[in-house]
Amino acid sequence: MKTFRLNQVNITSEFWNYYLDLIRTETLPYQLAVLKDEIDVDVQAERQDASLPAGKSHAIENFKIAAGLSEGDHFGWFFQDSDAYKWLEAVGYQLQITEDSKLEAAADELIDIIAQAQESTGYLNTYFQLRYPDLKYRQLYFSHELYCAGHLIEGAIAYHQATGKAKILDVALRFVDDIAEHFGWAEGQIQGADGHQEIELALLKLFDYTGKQQCLELANFFIEVRGLDPEFYRKEIVRNVKDGLSSDNPPVDLTYLQAYSQPKHQELALGHAVRMLYMSTAMAKLVQYLDNEELEDACYKIWNDITQRKLYITGGVGSTVHGEAFVGPYDLPNDTMYCETCASIALLYFAYELFKLSPKGEYIDVMERVLYNGILSGAALDGKHFFYVNPLEVDIESCRFNPDKGHVKLERPDWLGCACCPPNFARTISSIGTYIYTQFEDSVSLNLYVASNLVTEDFELRQETAFPNDDSVSVFYKGVSNHLVLRKPYWATEFKVTCRGGDIIAETFDWVTVAVSNEAEIEIVFKQPLLTITANPLVQSTVGKVAFQKGPFVYCGQTLQNPSLDRCRVPKHFQDEYETTLATDLALPYSLVTIPASKVSAWDGLYRFNGDSEVPESMSLHLIPYFLWANQGVSGMRVWFPKEVVDD
Amino acid sequence: MKTFRLNQVNITSEFWNYYLDLIRTETLPYQLAVLKDEIDVDVQAERQDASLPAGKSHAIENFKIAAGLSEGDHFGWFFQDSDAYKWLEAVGYQLQITEDSKLEAAADELIDIIAQAQESTGYLNTYFQLRYPDLKYRQLYFSHELYCAGHLIEGAIAYHQATGKAKILDVALRFVDDIAEHFGWAEGQIQGADGHQEIELALLKLFDYTGKQQCLELANFFIEVRGLDPEFYRKEIVRNVKDGLSSDNPPVDLTYLQAYSQPKHQELALGHAVRMLYMSTAMAKLVQYLDNEELEDACYKIWNDITQRKLYITGGVGSTVHGEAFVGPYDLPNDTMYCETCASIALLYFAYELFKLSPKGEYIDVMERVLYNGILSGAALDGKHFFYVNPLEVDIESCRFNPDKGHVKLERPDWLGCACCPPNFARTISSIGTYIYTQFEDSVSLNLYVASNLVTEDFELRQETAFPNDDSVSVFYKGVSNHLVLRKPYWATEFKVTCRGGDIIAETFDWVTVAVSNEAEIEIVFKQPLLTITANPLVQSTVGKVAFQKGPFVYCGQTLQNPSLDRCRVPKHFQDEYETTLATDLALPYSLVTIPASKVSAWDGLYRFNGDSEVPESMSLHLIPYFLWANQGVSGMRVWFPKEVVDD
Repeated sequence: MKTFRLNQVNITSEFWNYYLDLIRTETLPYQLAVLKDEIDVDVQAERQDASLPAGKSHAIENFKIAAGLSEGDHFGWFFQDSDAYKWLEAVGYQLQITEDSKLEAAADELIDIIAQAQESTGYLNTYFQLRYPDLKYRQLYFSHELYCAGHLIEGAIAYHQATGKAKILDVALRFVDDIAEHFGWAEGQIQGADGHQEIELALLKLFDYTGKQQCLELANFFIEVRGLDPEFYRKEIVRNVKDGLSSDNPPVDLTYLQAYSQPKHQELALGHAVRMLYMSTAMAKLVQYLDNEELEDACYKIWNDITQRKLYITGGVGSTVHGEAFVGPYDLPNDTMYCETCASIALLYFAYELFKLSPKGEYIDVMERVLYNGILSGAALDGKHFFYVNPLEVDIESCRFNPDKGHVKLERPDWLGCACCPPNFARTISSIGTYIYTQFEDSVSLNLYVASNLVTEDFELRQETAFPNDDSVSVFYKGVSNHLVLRKPYWATEFKVTCRGGDIIAETFDWVTVAVSNEAEIEIVFKQPLLTITANPLVQSTVGKVAFQKGPFVYCGQTLQNPSLDRCRVPKHFQDEYETTLATDLALPYSLVTIPASKVSAWDGLYRFNGDSEVPESMSLHLIPYFLWANQGVSGMRVWFPKEVVDD
Repeated sequence: MKTFRLNQVNITSEFWNYYLDLIRTETLPYQLAVLKDEIDVDVQAERQDASLPAGKSHAIENFKIAAGLSEGDHFGWFFQDSDAYKWLEAVGYQLQITEDSKLEAAADELIDIIAQAQESTGYLNTYFQLRYPDLKYRQLYFSHELYCAGHLIEGAIAYHQATGKAKILDVALRFVDDIAEHFGWAEGQIQGADGHQEIELALLKLFDYTGKQQCLELANFFIEVRGLDPEFYRKEIVRNVKDGLSSDNPPVDLTYLQAYSQPKHQELALGHAVRMLYMSTAMAKLVQYLDNEELEDACYKIWNDITQRKLYITGGVGSTVHGEAFVGPYDLPNDTMYCETCASIALLYFAYELFKLSPKGEYIDVMERVLYNGILSGAALDGKHFFYVNPLEVDIESCRFNPDKGHVKLERPDWLGCACCPPNFARTISSIGTYIYTQFEDSVSLNLYVASNLVTEDFELRQETAFPNDDSVSVFYKGVSNHLVLRKPYWATEFKVTCRGGDIIAETFDWVTVAVSNEAEIEIVFKQPLLTITANPLVQSTVGKVAFQKGPFVYCGQTLQNPSLDRCRVPKHFQDEYETTLATDLALPYSLVTIPASKVSAWDGLYRFNGDSEVPESMSLHLIPYFLWANQGVSGMRVWFPKEVVDD
């Protein structure tokens, strides 16, 4: 199994090219200007807490100060460095698909600064260098040093792959050497892992890219050492206090850190959602290189816990702002949830690694769900505003008055004090090409229907389609004898495949395998009807409610288009009565769906005792794809709609 | 208008005497032992926050230390003193109705300690005396000095009224003199009010009890000065920092403190619920003595905001743990709410003051709702365990895993670090006699049906009834010509009044007025059918759901009796099919209600797309009065039940 390089996949999809161009021409220059503090933007704290850094980024200034190029103090989170690394990674992906000398020059300039900030030992973390040099590698429960190293590695690989320039990759490799010297099983080495997982998956990418055994071993070490001694983090705290290096003596929440036991013994998605999922991604990656049945089994159990019990219909995960975390099974509140953009991104990564491990349709289903909904909702259509939290239900007054919703923002801010999401969005969407096709031993799978050309040494494969705004895909193949495994999406009806120059040799409920040789043309047609989604009755927040999906898009209603949204009830049966219009009022065309619904009456006061039910008025409910919400100003919004209750 | 003294009202009700006896014989001795740290109990923080004091009470020890009778440091909240004062108040009420030499001796002993703790100036607050003597009356935004003074006053009145012993009343009056010296409109006096209202209503009680004009003026001052200078609290903080007395420099949330404008200009229930309602109680009390149309108008507006938009069906108020506060209109989550026992108690007080001001049935309706539900739920039937937070929906796993519900406890703890609720429960229930009857100029209203004898100089009035476990009340009257105004509860059907020796002279939808002379016997009969409650559709948490009430009791289901509670759906029409049984398995007999319901099936996983609906199984739903929940061990619970949705 292998994935294709981004420069092998030329995307021609209007939908995805909108984003790819937007990110290259708008988002990345904008983000750089923010990281450099060059423009005046509203940098908001990601949740209501006066102690959180906000107001500016300072990320690049931190590197300059550490490099001796500027004077001042570190500002921002202890992981502020990672914002720059993720930006660099996004640039790397963009440059793999499109030349852009301006972006490249800006990246080179940043790389020069980063390289100068690196210590002679290889160590690189501006927070500890500038603030707490004595505490390097000594506060792993919160330090994010290895987390930042991981993002440096990912950025370095992407940029090296794009440009062949070795400078930032050398920086990363030198940092890895420093880490390998300090961490490991040998006596005197640190036997602990970063509180925030990330280095593990990055080291595995680096192993994949360089073949350096050291990287695989180190990744394996971090996965094995985590939770091995659950007292590790408390011990380091106590030691720091004893050594007079810190007065911090906090309790350590091992669940939050997924350090209550070794990853291979974990079965549940618990704690901080991004950490959980970066760890799971690394676990699923690691078993692709090293046999480890326990670890593989843990991956599937964690996956099941998420997708069977803890996943929002939008692909969001993390039900609570407290610890940005997973909670118990079926506990999916729609209005106080977290659903951090980064957590959805991390779930995309985990899903794809599992798919590579075991190519089942369910992984692509989730990948697609999270991509078209919970990830895309993370950025505005202008590419310059970003959600950290992606709610499924927003009541404007409630968000204004209820501090339980202090983290639920009504509009995407310019930037965030904790700016993990904006560059994560940029790097992930910029690498969309990697998710479309996967090469298996004797087949190529078409995971996502995205107009594109895939060119390899052995074959050329072309998808022509206006999907998601069209219901047919033409696939052109030219090359060696092969098996094309075409995804049969669960949301499609009347799915038909006709081949010229190929034969359908297998069909399951989610895949159609076509044997092709030399040259083939495959026509795929299907319908994307509006689907009514019902949740398991154990999910209390959705009892008596339905949600809607059309193709890969979950739909939502906004109060902007539906002033009576709060009182809207949807009929139980309307399958043939809804209307679909291709709307062009936003930068991206989309299918506007209108369904007949009803509007119940409110009354003065709160409660009625044995009250007569009133006859609801009829109304039209206008629905738009969820990811497009909050692009037209402040609006209430909801994904789940109460069903009409006929009262007699 | 006047209320009757507790020693004029002899309660014979089995239901209420259970509580009165329980509090006198179990609760008050237990609470004293806790306040004295004499017994080993589990003192829990009221919410998840490691910085909150817990583990012990230390309330009386603080007084001892301040009195020089013991050595050590202050422990607990800065308002820990008030726990002891409220206990004393409860004892005062109990001693007004029943002699108890042991309780009286214990109270005298406590009073001796309190009196010795008082400074020669009259000042009395152990936190500031022991910890921050330089900051007396200088940190009003949080200090609770006057809040504690208020509770001292209320306790002193109750105890003096019961025993005629002047010692604690003298302590209170000397403290009031000190307060009057420091606060007021004159130059050099402090022009600000305590961040936590309470002194205002206490001073008005003291004015009522002693006739001292100073008390009325001071109460009026505190109501007038609040919010007059919204910068007052910030200015005192800045001054303390400038004077080197404190390094605390927090922002001040004026909404939380109801200090964003003068009370007479406030129209909404906002901020900390108990503060809001103690203030409102004082406002409604004040306008009984001083003409103030603006203030009276504000009372009605605040009342309407609460009862029309912010009141749980249980009589709970305060939708959020953050600031224990009111939020926006119709925002009433059932599972993350606060509904502090003290807030329901405060609402009872506010309702009764409004009733005295304008004797409308709606005030008694709320008074009764809050009394029989949200207040009684605050204590276990053993009188020794107490809820701070009174949820309407509890899912055991969600409470365990979801920190958003960290404040929602599954069992009533032995005691709380912030122990405002336990003695508040004790003092309020002990004074239940004051709410049953009200004397108006030419009439007596029977507000609550509680078996009791009311004896005044002019008449004797006796209610004989086994209500709430019976559907008839006999009223015997003997005395001067009078009008008896009998409440016609909204939950009663077939309400009939027959008189011997009296005539019905007026009848509205909520009152029946009977003219009586010399001797009369009135027979009231009614039915208490099971009522189905529907909430305004603007309340999102109850859409598609119903709740149940029978007589004054809101009903709930527990998972203990209904293992499939989460999946239970109630039919739309079952009015004649439910069963009622007088259950005797708990210390108090109660009506167990069983209704035919159905149970939907859960499935593996989360979502279904255009899934077939399954035929639900039938089940019996067993409902108990809400206030009795959590008396039989850990259990899930809910008040609102989704309605069955017929899918075709």
